[in-house]
Amino acid sequence: MSFRFRVEATAGAARAGVFFTPRGPVETPAFMPVGTLGTVKALDPDDLTAMGAGMILANAYHLHLRPGDDIVRALGGLHRFMGWSGPILTDSGGFQVFSLATLRTVSEDGAEFQSHIDGSRRAFTPESVIHIERNIGADVIMQFDHVIPGQSDAPAARDASERSLRWLARCRREFARLVREDRGAPTPDQALLPILQGGVHAELRREAAAAIAGMDDWAGYGVGGLSVGESKAAMYATLDVVDEALPRDRPRYLMGVGFPEDLVEGVRRGVDLFDCVAPTRMGRNGTVFTSDGRLNVKRADFRADPRPLDERCDCAACRRFSRAYIRHLFIADEMLGLRLLSLHNVHFLLSLMRDLRSALLSATFDGWSRDWLERYHSRPAPVP
Amino acid sequence: MSFRFRVEATAGAARAGVFFTPRGPVETPAFMPVGTLGTVKALDPDDLTAMGAGMILANAYHLHLRPGDDIVRALGGLHRFMGWSGPILTDSGGFQVFSLATLRTVSEDGAEFQSHIDGSRRAFTPESVIHIERNIGADVIMQFDHVIPGQSDAPAARDASERSLRWLARCRREFARLVREDRGAPTPDQALLPILQGGVHAELRREAAAAIAGMDDWAGYGVGGLSVGESKAAMYATLDVVDEALPRDRPRYLMGVGFPEDLVEGVRRGVDLFDCVAPTRMGRNGTVFTSDGRLNVKRADFRADPRPLDERCDCAACRRFSRAYIRHLFIADEMLGLRLLSLHNVHFLLSLMRDLRSALLSATFDGWSRDWLERYHSRPAPVP
Repeated sequence: MSFRFRVEATAGAARAGVFFTPRGPVETPAFMPVGTLGTVKALDPDDLTAMGAGMILANAYHLHLRPGDDIVRALGGLHRFMGWSGPILTDSGGFQVFSLATLRTVSEDGAEFQSHIDGSRRAFTPESVIHIERNIGADVIMQFDHVIPGQSDAPAARDASERSLRWLARCRREFARLVREDRGAPTPDQALLPILQGGVHAELRREAAAAIAGMDDWAGYGVGGLSVGESKAAMYATLDVVDEALPRDRPRYLMGVGFPEDLVEGVRRGVDLFDCVAPTRMGRNGTVFTSDGRLNVKRADFRADPRPLDERCDCAACRRFSRAYIRHLFIADEMLGLRLLSLHNVHFLLSLMRDLRSALLSATFDGWSRDWLERYHSRPAPVP
Repeated sequence: MSFRFRVEATAGAARAGVFFTPRGPVETPAFMPVGTLGTVKALDPDDLTAMGAGMILANAYHLHLRPGDDIVRALGGLHRFMGWSGPILTDSGGFQVFSLATLRTVSEDGAEFQSHIDGSRRAFTPESVIHIERNIGADVIMQFDHVIPGQSDAPAARDASERSLRWLARCRREFARLVREDRGAPTPDQALLPILQGGVHAELRREAAAAIAGMDDWAGYGVGGLSVGESKAAMYATLDVVDEALPRDRPRYLMGVGFPEDLVEGVRRGVDLFDCVAPTRMGRNGTVFTSDGRLNVKRADFRADPRPLDERCDCAACRRFSRAYIRHLFIADEMLGLRLLSLHNVHFLLSLMRDLRSALLSATFDGWSRDWLERYHSRPAPVP
């Protein structure tokens, strides 16, 4: 198979590795910037290349609604459509359907929901989602899963987890059928990844991991249903369970996570891939990740501050502009401000992952990550 | 003096030249992208460099209100503040005060107005505006002038034109005083430019041109009070008068103009410098300049159109993206759409100016500009 994973160094559960894809290798641990609608908000694909992004993420639910996965396919697939030649992963829409709350009903067949754009009635099944993800043509595609709130009790979590397993089997069958028929998908060589559910219930996570691993030799494993309302402690404890339960020779992708500190804690618990809208969404709100914690760029005391956002950062915003200038852009509603903070925050996470990887390769990971967390949490300048 | 202008080729009134400034030469004819608040909207300074922008424009009125010209000065001047090392020109705010309509009163001393941001009472005098422009530190700074509507009758136009002349004398005195005192302006070497007013009244334009030229040996001449409501025919006729009336050995800057066709018509009438918010403002509305006229990128028939915005364009949008993709970005309210159209439209004008210059240097200007206008106006696809 054209997807391979090679572990190059470890420290406890943490690993440095390479995830090989048909569109190039992805050095792990890696943060994947999120381009929900086929664009990482406020950034240009050239920015992502310049920042050294490896794999990026898009969303099947959103691209199905706009512009339509048929359009993406007609235009040669998502890579060509959005001008990104590196690897892409699509999430299936399970999380988006979950987010629609009262606008959706889930049954064994699939999910019915109202489009958040025009209110039209829509239905997703495991089969239709795989069809959409084939049309979009990402390299790595996620199964359609049943996501539930993080505080769900064991019976509800078991119900959703077991349904997700049955949906995985259906996704796998449909994927195999479409590959066999070779429907001329723009990306013929795709990997379908399962998503491990089970909430914060260790036993459910272990059962699901065993069931998934028994079904196929997957190219990697998604870990879903975390960072959806449970406590950080519960998330970290669950990650410890998942690390034990999943095969060690495949990449683990913790979906929708996260904040800088979550990435470090996740890597310490054996996670290889992450994605999150936080760096761009928070950037658009004026929040800046720095090695000393978060800042809000709109702070009045930045009005004439000549320093860069983060004096330890070498991103294209920090190399060129002062806090005073970026604050001015935000106060004046200038788009460049949104772009510069998105750029800085995404660069911050990509750079953090590179540092963690270096520390793993040079066998200094434990000390490095402990020091980093301590400095980050000590934040001398709290967010106002 | 460190500002010089060299004419390299002519064709009738049209000229190709070089405007030398302390921050580098500007090849003319030139379009200056507008960065009102110290940023060309939706673009990064690196984009402007990549597109080959020469001089750019900012606005004293706007920067005085936000972030404050004192802040810009404290941060080392506008070049450093906004990360642009090429030449910058600041408009004085005469046009902005004019645009405030009912919120302002003009007297011999200056203009009183209400800030469009917080409604606070403000007053500009020729002296205070020069002080502001010294603080901002652009290379070329415009006098404070009295702008009136394009349809104004001769008595009103005479009144405003003569007041602008008196204000020019006051600007010149204050500028000389500040230079003499060397108040440590971030850009010690600035050129103050007069602005020719007089509406569409040929005699007033001639009188004002003579009065201005009699006052000093200016580094260049602004032409104001056009593209403010008068007909295109009246604007072009006035430009013919202005071309005869102004010295030929200095650059002429037609303020606030314009659209692609206006640039070509202006160059044919002896104009060397232009600025206008149209390329970025129209870009943010989805309107695209092409060599066949304007397009609106939101058109339904672009939904699956794989072609670039303009097949004759080599900008960073047209090299990489389809109409279908950019339409999708607009429909989905993605910022990259605003950036790509702003980029395309600014590139279109910069590239048009380069083509006009080449045609002048190769003595093919008359035919080239006639053909260009014919093609542009034939627009097979009118704006819906």
